[in-house]
Amino acid sequence: MAKIKIVVAGPRGRMGKEAVKLVMENENYELVGVLDRKNEGKSLSDVEGFTNENAIVYTDIHKCFTEQKPDVLVDLTTPEVGMEHTVTALEYGVRPVVGTTGFSSGDLNKLENLSKQTGLGCIIAPNFAIGAVLMMKFSQMAAKYFSDVEILELHHDQKLDAPSGTAVKTAEMISSVREAKQQGHKDEKETIVGARGANYDGMHIHSVRLPGLIAHQQVMFGSDGQTLSIRHDSYNRASFMSGVRLAVDTVMKNNSFVYGLENIIE
Amino acid sequence: MAKIKIVVAGPRGRMGKEAVKLVMENENYELVGVLDRKNEGKSLSDVEGFTNENAIVYTDIHKCFTEQKPDVLVDLTTPEVGMEHTVTALEYGVRPVVGTTGFSSGDLNKLENLSKQTGLGCIIAPNFAIGAVLMMKFSQMAAKYFSDVEILELHHDQKLDAPSGTAVKTAEMISSVREAKQQGHKDEKETIVGARGANYDGMHIHSVRLPGLIAHQQVMFGSDGQTLSIRHDSYNRASFMSGVRLAVDTVMKNNSFVYGLENIIE
Amino acid sequence: MAKIKIVVAGPRGRMGKEAVKLVMENENYELVGVLDRKNEGKSLSDVEGFTNENAIVYTDIHKCFTEQKPDVLVDLTTPEVGMEHTVTALEYGVRPVVGTTGFSSGDLNKLENLSKQTGLGCIIAPNFAIGAVLMMKFSQMAAKYFSDVEILELHHDQKLDAPSGTAVKTAEMISSVREAKQQGHKDEKETIVGARGANYDGMHIHSVRLPGLIAHQQVMFGSDGQTLSIRHDSYNRASFMSGVRLAVDTVMKNNSFVYGLENIIE
Amino acid sequence: MAKIKIVVAGPRGRMGKEAVKLVMENENYELVGVLDRKNEGKSLSDVEGFTNENAIVYTDIHKCFTEQKPDVLVDLTTPEVGMEHTVTALEYGVRPVVGTTGFSSGDLNKLENLSKQTGLGCIIAPNFAIGAVLMMKFSQMAAKYFSDVEILELHHDQKLDAPSGTAVKTAEMISSVREAKQQGHKDEKETIVGARGANYDGMHIHSVRLPGLIAHQQVMFGSDGQTLSIRHDSYNRASFMSGVRLAVDTVMKNNSFVYGLENIIE
Repeated sequence: MAKIKIVVAGPRGRMGKEAVKLVMENENYELVGVLDRKNEGKSLSDVEGFTNENAIVYTDIHKCFTEQKPDVLVDLTTPEVGMEHTVTALEYGVRPVVGTTGFSSGDLNKLENLSKQTGLGCIIAPNFAIGAVLMMKFSQMAAKYFSDVEILELHHDQKLDAPSGTAVKTAEMISSVREAKQQGHKDEKETIVGARGANYDGMHIHSVRLPGLIAHQQVMFGSDGQTLSIRHDSYNRASFMSGVRLAVDTVMKNNSFVYGLENIIE
Repeated sequence: MAKIKIVVAGPRGRMGKEAVKLVMENENYELVGVLDRKNEGKSLSDVEGFTNENAIVYTDIHKCFTEQKPDVLVDLTTPEVGMEHTVTALEYGVRPVVGTTGFSSGDLNKLENLSKQTGLGCIIAPNFAIGAVLMMKFSQMAAKYFSDVEILELHHDQKLDAPSGTAVKTAEMISSVREAKQQGHKDEKETIVGARGANYDGMHIHSVRLPGLIAHQQVMFGSDGQTLSIRHDSYNRASFMSGVRLAVDTVMKNNSFVYGLENIIE
Repeated sequence: MAKIKIVVAGPRGRMGKEAVKLVMENENYELVGVLDRKNEGKSLSDVEGFTNENAIVYTDIHKCFTEQKPDVLVDLTTPEVGMEHTVTALEYGVRPVVGTTGFSSGDLNKLENLSKQTGLGCIIAPNFAIGAVLMMKFSQMAAKYFSDVEILELHHDQKLDAPSGTAVKTAEMISSVREAKQQGHKDEKETIVGARGANYDGMHIHSVRLPGLIAHQQVMFGSDGQTLSIRHDSYNRASFMSGVRLAVDTVMKNNSFVYGLENIIE
Repeated sequence: MAKIKIVVAGPRGRMGKEAVKLVMENENYELVGVLDRKNEGKSLSDVEGFTNENAIVYTDIHKCFTEQKPDVLVDLTTPEVGMEHTVTALEYGVRPVVGTTGFSSGDLNKLENLSKQTGLGCIIAPNFAIGAVLMMKFSQMAAKYFSDVEILELHHDQKLDAPSGTAVKTAEMISSVREAKQQGHKDEKETIVGARGANYDGMHIHSVRLPGLIAHQQVMFGSDGQTLSIRHDSYNRASFMSGVRLAVDTVMKNNSFVYGLENIIE
């Protein structure tokens, strides 16, 4: 079987570095180039932080696509650059796999239309950690049968925002299918304010912050005599790579536009 | 809306008692009779262990169905009696909801055919705890993306068998979709025999037994940098009732044969 | 060895019933009487809810102690009645084991003096669940080495107050030894109010409420690269009985006043 | 207050590197030298892997101690080298803090005597992760009150031995105080061999191995109606540093020999 020819955009970022590593280590993939803002024409192996990666660095996407004719673009840049790259990729017949939370609904509409016109698969993923995506999907499924649910997210104590973006996303997904309900006893009282956590549409979200922790979330459902808990523990950035691999393999077989890995998980 | 008319078979058993309670407390349900081996013609309220349940006790299923014309039979008896009841119900136009692990594949085939011929819904459920059913279903779904999985089941120390039936069922369901794999390091060594648990098709199952515990199971998946855990805690028999309710509501709308609640959960 | 002769006060209450059962089942104990507000002179076995307990019911504590000369009084009544019982017991040479959270510091001082004067052991326990007492004691010990701690308590959704009494007691005990600290990032922001839970002296407490849950608490400590968690799960009232047993055995050997089981645990 | 003058032996090892970092970052400590097998006379900042550490590298311990007159030696080398270093340190009036599992009981006796003769504190620690040490200590304390206990240890799937050394050490510590007991039902049966884990003196140990996991252990105790769980999660080597800090501070105040951090934890 011919290898899938891949270009990675943003190779020096934290995610990009992991993506380069993934492509190098997978025998079905071939890294034919990387897109970056500098180091035009160098071999990636000569760039600081890399050693044996022989792919050429391009600063011009048109030159890159013309010379290398890749099958897939894995884009891990910024929303602005990523949008331009994605449009260009579809125009050149290259299938995009893009990791971003920053595309507007206008952007997404435009890309969906372009994907239809060209008949090319295109996958946009706000989260590549398959475990986290499954946690959210399973939580949404369970919420049809359990209307009582609390979300507990636990992160290192340098995190600024509470609740986490993933917790809020999970609550939104649950809320879209859950029978509306204000949980807890109706005469419930907080003797210390905040004890019952954040209230999102009648559900409660609790944010734990401790040094040592990395990124963890537990979704707990309860009904008479039983509880069901779904938990994801993320220990490091390598957790994103199984999702990138799934997206690359899927975008080659699947000629449609997909927003969110939960939609390619069966 | 007319209430759903229900007959419960096996009202004095542990599950049966909970089912009677469920039907009495649900305003969309009406308990029109119970099937038992004794107390013919009595009101259930006069039977020891009951107080306000005015349904009539029948020992003859034909008399019961002829007089009461129920919509649904909830059967919580033994496999032998339950099979006869289920066939009779379908012949009388009554939709069966049966809780049993004891039907043979021959029995199931026969019931599926009868359900098709009559066009009546029929639900056979080995496990009514929706949380447990979801845990198994989610585990099967996750196993497509995570080939490394270990099952941990925890029960009170009076349990005789290890691993539990639910753990083995979960392993079977996972095994049917999981990429075959012998997990752990290939040179792994047990310095005390049994440390790595039971080996089921390359997966490992661990059985914890402690006084105080009731019935708990955790399925853990791991890949680079992340773990995903799905856990069900069962505290008492009330946990079965949400599944009975789901089955009753579904069997009224759904004109087909279903084996296992996982198949009516979307 | 002679059996320990025990009187239980409050035999018809939930805790009292368990205590009667404990004394009946332990071969080193003898139930020589019970103290109650009614049923004077009856055998306990003739009182509703009991069957084989041959102890005599007394409504007069003086008569009870004079006739039975018990070694230990296990008191599971109200604070008011319990205070009177405890004083009387010490005066009669009976060693008290009292389960209450309601004694004032004045009461406790009075009992401590009386215990010293008489040279009799006397144990007052706000919580008899040894697991919960150990959780609190261990948390206090750990707090000397980990100044970052969050408390998570989980209860059924019919509970009115949040946080639970045990969570607040745990926070107090930790606070007495922990280096003062306002945890979390100094610029931390709640995007939904309450997400970070209740703030107790710079520590955070989170209260989860779900149907199905019973009474659970987890205390989590974190520092660079590690977390330490101590968790207690209480499933039913039987959990109190190992603490009653420990208190009875200790009060016979130990001639001093003790407030809180944590002080007789080594 | 004068800073504590510290020499680190083994600065290029994984633990040693963390120790150098710890000493550099703590304002009460001063790194006055490092002991290594090479780079004699260089500044540590000129050695690969370091940048701003101005301490001198010594290959001769006598020269190092004579020139620098340190207060404390933190030794993170091998058992052979470490033994020689520790003896020499005590002879020079330097207090040793040694991380090793490899000293024989003969070595330990010799060091204890030398510590007594010189009146100098000396701390030998097989494990510097305070969380792990507390987990073991608390488990030992709890075992006096709960004779039923199971140990669950979870590690990455590249680990060769099962159970882990920490699990076996925990079982030994529990065993020294626990009432002897063969746990589980006496007629318990494994339908798949190994399900009940490793049997250590009647207790069961279960070893989970999954990619993604790092190093985790949970000790579970159960009795009627309750369970108590103590869990340590180790995410990276930084977890050892709080223990090194505790040992350094204690060895300066405490003029005796200590084997195991559990003995300086109150």
